[in-house]
Amino acid sequence: LSFEVKDRAAAGRIGRLETRHGTVTTPTLLPVINPNLPTVPPADMKRLFGAEMVITNSYILRKSDALRERALREGVHKTIGWDGPVMTDSGTFQSYFYKKPIEVSPLEIVEFQKKIGVDVGTILDVFTTPEKTREEAVAELDETMRRAKEAVAAKNGMMLAATVQGGVHVDVREQAARAIGALDVDVVPIGGVVPLMEQARYADLARVILASKRHLPSGKPVHLFGAGHPLVFPLAAALGCDLFDSASYAKFAKDGRMILPNGTRSLDEVEELGCICPECDRWKNAAELRRAAPAERESALARHNLHVSFGEIRRIRQAIRDGALWELVEERAAQNPALLDALVALRGENEVTWLERLEPTSGARAFQYRGAHSMHRPGIRRLHNRLVERWRPRSKTCIVLPERPKPYAEGYAAYLDAFMRTGHDFVVDTPMGPIPLELERLYPVAQSVFPETLDADARLVREAYSARFFHHFDGCDVLPADLAEYEALAPELCSLTPDAFEQRRMASLADYQYGPGAAAGLLAGQVTFKRSPGTGGVRNVFADGVHVASLRARDGLLSLRIEGARRLVAALPSPRARIRLDDEPASFVRDGKNVMAKFVVAADSQLRPGDDAAVVDSKDAVVGVGRCQLSGWEMPQFQRGIGAKNTEHAKDD
Amino acid sequence: LSFEVKDRAAAGRIGRLETRHGTVTTPTLLPVINPNLPTVPPADMKRLFGAEMVITNSYILRKSDALRERALREGVHKTIGWDGPVMTDSGTFQSYFYKKPIEVSPLEIVEFQKKIGVDVGTILDVFTTPEKTREEAVAELDETMRRAKEAVAAKNGMMLAATVQGGVHVDVREQAARAIGALDVDVVPIGGVVPLMEQARYADLARVILASKRHLPSGKPVHLFGAGHPLVFPLAAALGCDLFDSASYAKFAKDGRMILPNGTRSLDEVEELGCICPECDRWKNAAELRRAAPAERESALARHNLHVSFGEIRRIRQAIRDGALWELVEERAAQNPALLDALVALRGENEVTWLERLEPTSGARAFQYRGAHSMHRPGIRRLHNRLVERWRPRSKTCIVLPERPKPYAEGYAAYLDAFMRTGHDFVVDTPMGPIPLELERLYPVAQSVFPETLDADARLVREAYSARFFHHFDGCDVLPADLAEYEALAPELCSLTPDAFEQRRMASLADYQYGPGAAAGLLAGQVTFKRSPGTGGVRNVFADGVHVASLRARDGLLSLRIEGARRLVAALPSPRARIRLDDEPASFVRDGKNVMAKFVVAADSQLRPGDDAAVVDSKDAVVGVGRCQLSGWEMPQFQRGIGAKNTEHAKDD
Repeated sequence: LSFEVKDRAAAGRIGRLETRHGTVTTPTLLPVINPNLPTVPPADMKRLFGAEMVITNSYILRKSDALRERALREGVHKTIGWDGPVMTDSGTFQSYFYKKPIEVSPLEIVEFQKKIGVDVGTILDVFTTPEKTREEAVAELDETMRRAKEAVAAKNGMMLAATVQGGVHVDVREQAARAIGALDVDVVPIGGVVPLMEQARYADLARVILASKRHLPSGKPVHLFGAGHPLVFPLAAALGCDLFDSASYAKFAKDGRMILPNGTRSLDEVEELGCICPECDRWKNAAELRRAAPAERESALARHNLHVSFGEIRRIRQAIRDGALWELVEERAAQNPALLDALVALRGENEVTWLERLEPTSGARAFQYRGAHSMHRPGIRRLHNRLVERWRPRSKTCIVLPERPKPYAEGYAAYLDAFMRTGHDFVVDTPMGPIPLELERLYPVAQSVFPETLDADARLVREAYSARFFHHFDGCDVLPADLAEYEALAPELCSLTPDAFEQRRMASLADYQYGPGAAAGLLAGQVTFKRSPGTGGVRNVFADGVHVASLRARDGLLSLRIEGARRLVAALPSPRARIRLDDEPASFVRDGKNVMAKFVVAADSQLRPGDDAAVVDSKDAVVGVGRCQLSGWEMPQFQRGIGAKNTEHAKDD
Repeated sequence: LSFEVKDRAAAGRIGRLETRHGTVTTPTLLPVINPNLPTVPPADMKRLFGAEMVITNSYILRKSDALRERALREGVHKTIGWDGPVMTDSGTFQSYFYKKPIEVSPLEIVEFQKKIGVDVGTILDVFTTPEKTREEAVAELDETMRRAKEAVAAKNGMMLAATVQGGVHVDVREQAARAIGALDVDVVPIGGVVPLMEQARYADLARVILASKRHLPSGKPVHLFGAGHPLVFPLAAALGCDLFDSASYAKFAKDGRMILPNGTRSLDEVEELGCICPECDRWKNAAELRRAAPAERESALARHNLHVSFGEIRRIRQAIRDGALWELVEERAAQNPALLDALVALRGENEVTWLERLEPTSGARAFQYRGAHSMHRPGIRRLHNRLVERWRPRSKTCIVLPERPKPYAEGYAAYLDAFMRTGHDFVVDTPMGPIPLELERLYPVAQSVFPETLDADARLVREAYSARFFHHFDGCDVLPADLAEYEALAPELCSLTPDAFEQRRMASLADYQYGPGAAAGLLAGQVTFKRSPGTGGVRNVFADGVHVASLRARDGLLSLRIEGARRLVAALPSPRARIRLDDEPASFVRDGKNVMAKFVVAADSQLRPGDDAAVVDSKDAVVGVGRCQLSGWEMPQFQRGIGAKNTEHAKDD
């Protein structure tokens, strides 16, 4: 398999798909090339829009004598005039669209794709429409699976795409995903979704994607078949779709319609082009473009549609790198009511649980509130759950601060000092709900931007969590802070936070990150700190003089040192806090190499991208510290790429 | 005065501002031209971005010997190389920025602007910062007003901009707006807002704009001084700002920053340019642009920033034409938490009341739900208020239908027939709340797109209205509809709705549009219909055989015929349903001319853009029917442009 993941956000990823004709960065869009009459010349696809891979139709190529002969003689690449990677569809969509079986057998079309040298060929699956009953969907899936197995046996060197069908029946989709995922296929399209997109049934689309993704191996690239409107790209990418394909750019252009990130408009309806793409810039106003010759107008609109579509693809990739993909999804949802319903469909317990299992530990940019949906993001769910499940109070009195204190402000240190001397627990009332004072620098609490007034739905989420959190203090006193007392505290103590407070912070962080017992192991003995000369903030954490961890400025979390990893391994039962390798790959890590995902035998299922883990060999000996690029549970599902980056290794230890 | 309004949405408008150097379509952006060193050549401002007017600084021109000499000799246009309209600032911002008075008297700088031939000169007002107390703001306002009066006396042929100050004190802003509005000035800037924008205090910005606009004459163009980031354009335009000015494009470019519709990003932070503007298209990736020579990078970023800024201006103008400006504002608010707070600030009773007074009757596109804020739009407020205040039940029993029946579907007509035969009231439960069955085709009820799940805040608005609406049925029966009964009704009755139902619809519409008593007047006698041969839907309404009104397909409202206007005038006390003119301009209308706003003596304060009104002379004789382009109350505040379009006139009657 030739797919690896380089970066993560939400359940989306930046991937690299390797083919014989070059490597493709995902998520990406495969423009559909009509072999009979391309609206935009394939060469322009690369030059003007940065397309890296295209898709064309093997069924159409095969049907025409001239095209078939040429494709068989010269190969598909020369036939369509594209020297990069080529995927082909198989006629499935035609059989759906024209409502009759196509005149070629499933095996013949696979063989034909092989013969013309496509990079990724597609099986001839059965397009199960949303109207099909569960029984019909199951029967059609049986036939799709029969064809998939037959195609896998025949694929030889060709990369093969085998499609997940199942209609709108979540359990049938799940069954299909498990069955397809078990086969030796290279790309997994999610099929049968065009009618859902045409009818703007985005909630159903989200359910179908999620049901499929949840049961597919993480390491396979997923293609959302027929998704050509940028409206669905951010949501689909956030749910883990890697490839899209678009004939929409050409179809809409033919109808005189403009694709926009938030919808589609007829050129006839608009007076001023709000779009700033090079094509719209060239025409300046809609009237002039309307007056153009039909062929010229059509190709101008097609180019506009491609600019907008590829712009959204680049925006998605940048949002993944920024750790801000949910923000983009929610922005787009605020532009289309049916996308709002799709976000509601993601709020279910099963859905959020799966999304949390992929959500990175922190993002490069701040957590930005975009509306009520933001409070349902998996990162907040994790924060809330961990504070309820992993944090423990030390006292019988909880003092609630009405807002986050400014760090290093006058009186702050004195306040923390008082906090330690009183022995009480202090909790800060944040927009995300009550957070223990010592954890409020943690991502996403401190690294967030909220409005002053939250939406009512967001307040409900906060209140539900708040009720769960304060169970920690059942039968105890929960008191509002006396701010006058805070103000009066001696300002001369400022700038350095007391060691006792930092010890409490580190203990709470260790348990927050690695679960109960982690603090006791990692921080056993006398805990001391090395501080930043400038700010006085803690940088390094020592236990009995040994450097066990550092505090990451970016997200307020602990990064592990190898001695800390050893302490965690000693204190916690396997596989907690660990990535386990066989001894040979472990020896590479000991020498400083990264942890390749395919060598991972087992890993703590709680590890998330961005977490540090102890890398151990078969005897549970620590050979290094790895910073996870993937979630622990999905590492064994990858056959390529890095599972965790080596941040410290035993050899130099 | 040389400003007229051509189209409306929210409290925003498309305007035409006439100057000696050409006419400008508003809302628009005036790029700031630095006379010493323009980052982008002024000629490019027109050619590349479509700028129609620029702003430069008269204080800077005057300070340099060379520039001053040249400007006095050749005029400001030649000096900066721009032959279109030029506005100049006066040094106010410099006195704020450098925190010291500038070395020129307020009168001198006005005289200088006149001498160099600027199109719109600006007074040297006192920049009142947000930190100033109310007393300080009042004292500074006194000085600004003194200077404004002095400048007005000296303006001669030059158009003059006199700035509303007052800091963040709403009542001082209101006082300032009344005082400036009473002077003979041509443009009204809202000043002192740069610190609010720099600190993202958009709720305060919205309050300041609203306080100013509420007390300024509608007919004056309003300039939001220093607003150069597109982030604030949609909100400010929706509150009635017509002009913006931007030095931001150049300042941000100098700092290596990219303006985006939803914020600002450092070029250093990004890997892929998500932007599709011609400049970003040229560079394709951020690394390449970073490697460019500093001067080249700066000017590329400046051009990018201008593409994005002018793109947003065009988008706003198109949104006004579409009647979809609130949608755009809410989309942008979903991209920035501080803008969400600004929308919350607009929910107050005073705020919505003022906004409703400008909100057009209907929009060209559907009402699109964008989140909880959508339910607070003034159009919904009007719908709710009118249904509570103007609609009356006919019975003691209210049957609540769970959803909107599909018109002309099987059984629909039978249902309506049953409705009339029972004598009950039927009410439809819509996302906007309960709507009487006969009014549910009304804009924005039928012309709306909602998600299936409303936000909790939106549900609260709906429930509060619902409680008020059902007061109509206090002491009566409110029952859910028996849908089985509906289904069983004879389908053969379908397609034509019964006359009795249409009579009820017309009566409810008349009262909804013109208030109590309107139906009794307009529809006295035997009411009959002319129907569409195709759909069977009502087109024309006759009372005793006279064509009194038609049903507008676009928004489901009545348009008046002149006989209907006469009946309304006979039935309703003046000035209800009327626009009154003096006899001479009334005679023009009688001949078919439009109603020019400046001739309007009085008009029904309830008339909104899109409403039909009776145009009457001094003796209350109807001379025509006018379709309002402006709200009735604001017509007398305009000195140019059309107040209402003539749709029928007495001469041909």
